[in-house]
Amino acid sequence: MNSELRSDPVTGRTVIIARGRSERPQDFARATTIRSHATCPFCRGNERETPQALAAYAVGGAAGEDDWLVRVIPNKYPALSFDAAPPTSLSDAEYAPTTGAGYGAHEVIIESPRHVTCFSRLDLVETQLALRAYRDRLLVHRDKKSLRYGQIFKNNGADGGATIGHVHSQLIATPFLPREVSAELAGCRRYFESHDRCIYCEMIDRETTLAQRTIAETERFIAFCPFAARFPYETWLLPRRHASQFHALDDIALAELAPLLRSLVAATIAASGQDAYNFLIHTAPFDTSATDHYHWHIELFPRMLEVGGFEWGTGCHINPVPPEDAAPQLRTMAQSFWDRKTS
Amino acid sequence: MNSELRSDPVTGRTVIIARGRSERPQDFARATTIRSHATCPFCRGNERETPQALAAYAVGGAAGEDDWLVRVIPNKYPALSFDAAPPTSLSDAEYAPTTGAGYGAHEVIIESPRHVTCFSRLDLVETQLALRAYRDRLLVHRDKKSLRYGQIFKNNGADGGATIGHVHSQLIATPFLPREVSAELAGCRRYFESHDRCIYCEMIDRETTLAQRTIAETERFIAFCPFAARFPYETWLLPRRHASQFHALDDIALAELAPLLRSLVAATIAASGQDAYNFLIHTAPFDTSATDHYHWHIELFPRMLEVGGFEWGTGCHINPVPPEDAAPQLRTMAQSFWDRKTS
Repeated sequence: MNSELRSDPVTGRTVIIARGRSERPQDFARATTIRSHATCPFCRGNERETPQALAAYAVGGAAGEDDWLVRVIPNKYPALSFDAAPPTSLSDAEYAPTTGAGYGAHEVIIESPRHVTCFSRLDLVETQLALRAYRDRLLVHRDKKSLRYGQIFKNNGADGGATIGHVHSQLIATPFLPREVSAELAGCRRYFESHDRCIYCEMIDRETTLAQRTIAETERFIAFCPFAARFPYETWLLPRRHASQFHALDDIALAELAPLLRSLVAATIAASGQDAYNFLIHTAPFDTSATDHYHWHIELFPRMLEVGGFEWGTGCHINPVPPEDAAPQLRTMAQSFWDRKTS
Repeated sequence: MNSELRSDPVTGRTVIIARGRSERPQDFARATTIRSHATCPFCRGNERETPQALAAYAVGGAAGEDDWLVRVIPNKYPALSFDAAPPTSLSDAEYAPTTGAGYGAHEVIIESPRHVTCFSRLDLVETQLALRAYRDRLLVHRDKKSLRYGQIFKNNGADGGATIGHVHSQLIATPFLPREVSAELAGCRRYFESHDRCIYCEMIDRETTLAQRTIAETERFIAFCPFAARFPYETWLLPRRHASQFHALDDIALAELAPLLRSLVAATIAASGQDAYNFLIHTAPFDTSATDHYHWHIELFPRMLEVGGFEWGTGCHINPVPPEDAAPQLRTMAQSFWDRKTS
């Protein structure tokens, strides 16, 4: 059941061939399981249906099997696993397809013991502990010599790629630097070399001054719709002060981030009118120390449109909702959710 | 209603912001319209519901509004249009977001006058004329000075990104070289420089020798599952003899390609068990003459899995069906369809 890493000989694009994952009960069904609390494997009380926890969180800190609020488990149908040997090299310069075993981590972060199906319906403490789990799991994996990147991501709703409805996020830690992260790093380096400044810091300044695409701000964080948004209602969330590593956040910063992210998810759902969305954390690779040119951030977007042949063929997205139109709507909705929750 | 081209300041990724497209009746519905022949705008007899034809094909050649078999019309909700001014430059090296008007073509190729909802259900002559229309429309646009690429693509089924059920393909001709095409070209150039050979020609030799991932062959064409397939049952279709430009194909070659492509689509549907799929043609950019290093090809894949945060965040796909498992199934299914249709 081990998976395999393959590079496309032309583009160097890496894919994970993971035969075992087609055994997932819901795979290919394009629908999430609607389960009651009694049969949901992610609900408290049903821990035996899932592998043993890698970590569990309660208000006071570590938790047991009966008082956890956030629980981290290995993915039962992993795309990558430590059972495989670390790849020796994954060259993409040649045809002579370089193949590696699917070495890496694939974990599930269950974000509530209750049968809740959306991040926006988490308690504040659950939200905070979820973010803490993201950080801690990145810290656990970053020192493994053969791992290069940790991708935290959330798939919500069937159209968002989720196969289980109970609210959860995932971590996949890879032995290669993913293409999209690599493209961002290259862009950041290029800009830094000619301007001696982080491009995301520049962007934050410009968006703040322009005030057309901004959605929300707290002391430490800012959210706006990006200038070249791929998706309707796409939102980026960044630390206002330069920081390249999500895993370097302390508990105080996470406590501030939690209600902001939750209100942005709520706004995303309200604006799109449905519950399918993704968010993902882009952070510096494991093997770089804190850098001046990269800036960690969260990308969040609802899944309103199905992409098709044009997007797959070109990498170019067609977005029918300009970010300047999306931002005022998201701003109002995020604010009203925030007020309701904190009043 | 003009659209706008925007480059992401970090990655240079181009997006098309096309406000007008959210007025499409089915947009955001994630479902194709189920229409009867009487109300379908793409059926023969209902030509008044669509813009005037740019081209129409019958068996003998050009056709009128009442005897066409394949009909090309402008997209009513275009992502790009010639009403806009050609962009002067679309630099992506700087933050200082470079923006251009949405100059280009967006056309719909209606592939049958009958209310057929899948490419595999076309008559042979319709299939041939559809391919001829793809070629001719590329030829029409390639000499426009400000256009750089023509992307022919098909979205079939709601999960494939289609909003209208009646069988059709599309062409979007862009004033920029799309990211994915650019990545392929770079890979081809790199390989050619060190091996003095086209990498796709090399691939065809290796796949033929290995005979593990091949699906079908004719005198001029070959189809196989690519080594690093992103999607379950992904298929590539290529000319066996080196050729960089799809638009250079003559009618004889198109007549040979038509039944092969049709049988591959039928096999894709049979293997995936549903009707959502995409195919797209990757061909040399408009501004290059025939080259030794690039090789045109068709990429075809069913839409069985919803991609999620991991794929969007990393550009890395997780494919649960190894191409070595997919190919024998597709081979049998394509062969049996072929036999049924030609017996």
